[in-house]
Amino acid sequence: MAKTVFKATAEGQDGLTMLCKARDFEIVIDEPPELGGNDKGMNPVEALLTALAACKAIVIKAFASKHRIKLNSVRVEVEGVLDPDGFLGLNKDAKIGYSEVTTHYYIDADNTEEEIDKYVKFVEKNCPVKDSIVNAPTMNYVIK
Amino acid sequence: MAKTVFKATAEGQDGLTMLCKARDFEIVIDEPPELGGNDKGMNPVEALLTALAACKAIVIKAFASKHRIKLNSVRVEVEGVLDPDGFLGLNKDAKIGYSEVTTHYYIDADNTEEEIDKYVKFVEKNCPVKDSIVNAPTMNYVIK
Repeated sequence: MAKTVFKATAEGQDGLTMLCKARDFEIVIDEPPELGGNDKGMNPVEALLTALAACKAIVIKAFASKHRIKLNSVRVEVEGVLDPDGFLGLNKDAKIGYSEVTTHYYIDADNTEEEIDKYVKFVEKNCPVKDSIVNAPTMNYVIK
Repeated sequence: MAKTVFKATAEGQDGLTMLCKARDFEIVIDEPPELGGNDKGMNPVEALLTALAACKAIVIKAFASKHRIKLNSVRVEVEGVLDPDGFLGLNKDAKIGYSEVTTHYYIDADNTEEEIDKYVKFVEKNCPVKDSIVNAPTMNYVIK
């Protein structure tokens, strides 16, 4: 497919509520009341974990048969540790974003433990969202 | 607030469709037909850009008055460049995730250009999703 441009937009609504769009798909991102929001949707750091969990799970499904994984079902849970005191400006030593992210793979497949271990190594290397985090892209911005 | 754990789950549905949850909020992540999906939701790399756009826009709204920004409205658009041939296994030289991400800030505020420039610099440094990408967290996984 060669280089492709993906896009997303966030538009401010009431308070911290954001109406977000990518192609024809809309989701609402917000913050819980304790972070000043209207609690109308998951917050951005949860959306980041959602993107990561979904990406890993999609890679698992998409490449299973090629890797001879007889997949029955998959669920991916991701947990991230973040200290809000960082971005709230309450603790200058606290990291602004996640300090640690752990993925729990629940894979039901008619394969050996060794085969599943090997397949998860492949998934960890070939997940576009994970790669975008651990091998950060060049980041630019423009003010309009 | 000290260290807080945020969570998200992706559960495989039909084909590549993923039902994703964070707290009580659900979104569907999928792939477009050309990437083998059912096209029932934005895809993971679009969800990543959505998280980034929403996070920047929320930081803009949340800290505006503290920084004396008289904000009327905000919209953040994010574009990412990614070559699907990487994760599709068609080109071993292609990066798996995004190679470049550009943010377009549309800020309507009763402030000077210089004040807005300075504020965007603050936003770029204090966005938890951006920090999670440019200063990657430790990444672990467990197979269950």
